[in-house]
Amino acid sequence: MNDTICALATPQGGAISVVRISGVKAIEYTSKIFTPRKGLPLAERKSHTAVFGDVCVTPGELLDEVLVTVMRAPYTYTGEDVVEISCHASPYITLQILLALFNLGARQAEPGEFTMRAFLNGKMDLSRAEAVADLIASSSKASHRLAMNQLKGDFSNELGNLRNKLLKLTTLMELELDFSEEDVTFADRSELMQLCDEIDGVMTHLTDSFAVGNAVKNGVPVAIVGETNAGKSTLLNALLREERAIVSDISGTTRDTIEGTMTIGGTTFRFIDTAGLRETSDVVEQMGIQRTVEQLRKTSIALWIVDPAADYTQMEITAKKILPECKEKKLAILVNKSDTIREERLAEVMKWGKSLVAECGEDIVWNENDMWAISARLRSNLDRLEEFLVRSAALPAISRGDVVVTNVRHYEALTRALNEIKEVKHGLELCLSGDLVSEHLRAAIHNLSEIVGEVTNDEVLGNIFANFCIGK
Amino acid sequence: MNDTICALATPQGGAISVVRISGVKAIEYTSKIFTPRKGLPLAERKSHTAVFGDVCVTPGELLDEVLVTVMRAPYTYTGEDVVEISCHASPYITLQILLALFNLGARQAEPGEFTMRAFLNGKMDLSRAEAVADLIASSSKASHRLAMNQLKGDFSNELGNLRNKLLKLTTLMELELDFSEEDVTFADRSELMQLCDEIDGVMTHLTDSFAVGNAVKNGVPVAIVGETNAGKSTLLNALLREERAIVSDISGTTRDTIEGTMTIGGTTFRFIDTAGLRETSDVVEQMGIQRTVEQLRKTSIALWIVDPAADYTQMEITAKKILPECKEKKLAILVNKSDTIREERLAEVMKWGKSLVAECGEDIVWNENDMWAISARLRSNLDRLEEFLVRSAALPAISRGDVVVTNVRHYEALTRALNEIKEVKHGLELCLSGDLVSEHLRAAIHNLSEIVGEVTNDEVLGNIFANFCIGK
Repeated sequence: MNDTICALATPQGGAISVVRISGVKAIEYTSKIFTPRKGLPLAERKSHTAVFGDVCVTPGELLDEVLVTVMRAPYTYTGEDVVEISCHASPYITLQILLALFNLGARQAEPGEFTMRAFLNGKMDLSRAEAVADLIASSSKASHRLAMNQLKGDFSNELGNLRNKLLKLTTLMELELDFSEEDVTFADRSELMQLCDEIDGVMTHLTDSFAVGNAVKNGVPVAIVGETNAGKSTLLNALLREERAIVSDISGTTRDTIEGTMTIGGTTFRFIDTAGLRETSDVVEQMGIQRTVEQLRKTSIALWIVDPAADYTQMEITAKKILPECKEKKLAILVNKSDTIREERLAEVMKWGKSLVAECGEDIVWNENDMWAISARLRSNLDRLEEFLVRSAALPAISRGDVVVTNVRHYEALTRALNEIKEVKHGLELCLSGDLVSEHLRAAIHNLSEIVGEVTNDEVLGNIFANFCIGK
Repeated sequence: MNDTICALATPQGGAISVVRISGVKAIEYTSKIFTPRKGLPLAERKSHTAVFGDVCVTPGELLDEVLVTVMRAPYTYTGEDVVEISCHASPYITLQILLALFNLGARQAEPGEFTMRAFLNGKMDLSRAEAVADLIASSSKASHRLAMNQLKGDFSNELGNLRNKLLKLTTLMELELDFSEEDVTFADRSELMQLCDEIDGVMTHLTDSFAVGNAVKNGVPVAIVGETNAGKSTLLNALLREERAIVSDISGTTRDTIEGTMTIGGTTFRFIDTAGLRETSDVVEQMGIQRTVEQLRKTSIALWIVDPAADYTQMEITAKKILPECKEKKLAILVNKSDTIREERLAEVMKWGKSLVAECGEDIVWNENDMWAISARLRSNLDRLEEFLVRSAALPAISRGDVVVTNVRHYEALTRALNEIKEVKHGLELCLSGDLVSEHLRAAIHNLSEIVGEVTNDEVLGNIFANFCIGK
């Protein structure tokens, strides 16, 4: 924290590039390569002034004409002296400026290090620091609003309220504890229980909101299932029209293999590819099919692509794998290849499909209108599919001030805290002594403190900020 | 020029994005969506101050926390009021800010429009404005220095000197003209001729410098020739190691089809793919081969890739197409596939190659060391190739203050001016009357004025700035 860091805060390209420098020597280092075109030297400029001048990294040789903004501690993003050099967006120029700063003693900033310094200098708590990364990544109104609510501190405030409630509970408990030898019960146990229920309710509400928060932030998962040859990939490509789709292969503990993300009608969807379903004795292929079933279980929307050219035996085998997994899901059955299959056959397959679903009983929430013919190749009847998706996602609108958990770390800490509260309630029910119960209370408080960063460790911080981009 | 323009000055991605606004209403429009966190409203802030605050495009709903820099006319880049909004680099946020500014009455800036306004407002002449685009595109020390020399005005000054010389010549001529009825020759014709020679010398020097300037700016062209199967593409890929290469397909009047640009040892090379050479009766393929020969003619460095597995008849046919075109070029003969061909065969092919070149006579500037075995696939012996390229390019070092023509438009205007001067000299030699001669002088001056933009028209300006990026 005593050194001075610098990084390019903008990507290569465009008209201008911004080099950001933070630390005690930010202004000193910049002064060594920058001379104002007129007026006072940089070191004598007031905070929050922009100065036009020349950058020379080799004596006497002009590298660029730039605009330098000086901001003095503590009223800066990091809480330290910050300088921003806005130069022409040439890769040569930005590299030379960074190299010159390194030579003077500055260090390349780690990803998120500017924001980490803001946190360490008390400019924002940890959950708000994390919101900065979400804000930068936000690409829809809903994900932006979630990040902004968190950045403004709505989530921190909610946690603060929760903590105050927990502290009140603890105080009451500990009062009891102090006088335990006298066998006096100061805290009314039913009052304690009521407070516990209240806390439980708020925490359950928060952890429940994660499903929505995660869907808004990372997209509503949609599984595309069907036989190998049914046209799953064609449908995926048709849905992810190049201009709108961000195709990526992010894998992780909380995400499935993502084939593509796309925003339709303001809702972001994550389309998940699955292995083709069919009867097989191949062990590896069986594992793939098992995985498909698991992926299906994790999603709330499933698109089943039927190849009307296949034979009924094969289709029935597939149906028996898919349908039992769709009991609480929104399911669309898409009879593909409408452009090459004659109408009578299509009608026959549709009729067959409807009877199959009916056989599965009333457990499947399904409407006969949710089966129709498409041509993924010709993109026909996909409007209807987009409509189905938006209707099925039906995410609650996020309002200003809504507190929604979007972050896996927060969700996990809240879940741990909630479990501790359950223990507290259990202890109260069993009339356990105050000291046994308050241990769980302290653990719950500790978990909440981890979210805002009041208790933390370097490894956790490292993990959080490693996901940031360089320069932020 | 009366409207207010805005554009994103940085590409999507990174930590921050900068929205740039210029025009009489830049501050007024920004004030409508931005509120400082504390202190005076934006409209009352001094020039060149950075203000932290909130952007709201929907009443009461915080879009982002941003840093706004206010710069007041005339001491700005464009000479107009300029505002820069530095926001979080979210595609959603930048879009919302731009949309809000459009709604208020601002207009999306055309490519280069900020710089065009700088020119129109007299902040820089045209050749310096053009240097801004070159500066942004500069990726090597040499191309940066050329652009910076031009931006600093070295080229404009050189043109100014030239114009003064031309004006002196004109004055002398016209004095003569005024008194022509009296049949008095005021200007000493030999003095005029001397001045003409001097101007001719400077202009010739400048137009000659374009070959170097163009090579520095766009890269030294290197043709890779050989039979279809010799391994040209593999060599190209091996040379353009992903981390160093910018592969593009820019085609244009002054450039060949570029397969890849790469900087080796400070020199930028443009590698040009050519159609494979072989004896053929196919008309289309013959046209391709004709094109290869033409591309070869335009380059000063040629790499001939030989497939040692081919038969000598085929190789000789290829050699007879290539070698006659290499008379004034630097030529390297690379015997490829050294990893799969046995050594005896390689030695045989090398010997054969040397005798072939010898047959072509002394016209070919070639050294026996410029033929060696490589394996493009395994990247072996490519160091030697890079060394050959740097040695063969041997561009003169660009010094501070060197005036080098890098711009096709400037080159063409100078060439036209030079032709007019030749006419003047011719007229003086033939003792033509002053009025005939001064017509050519005026045309020469006109051409020079076009370069700095003293005379210009909308179409020319449009063409120049259309090549800029948005936001500059």
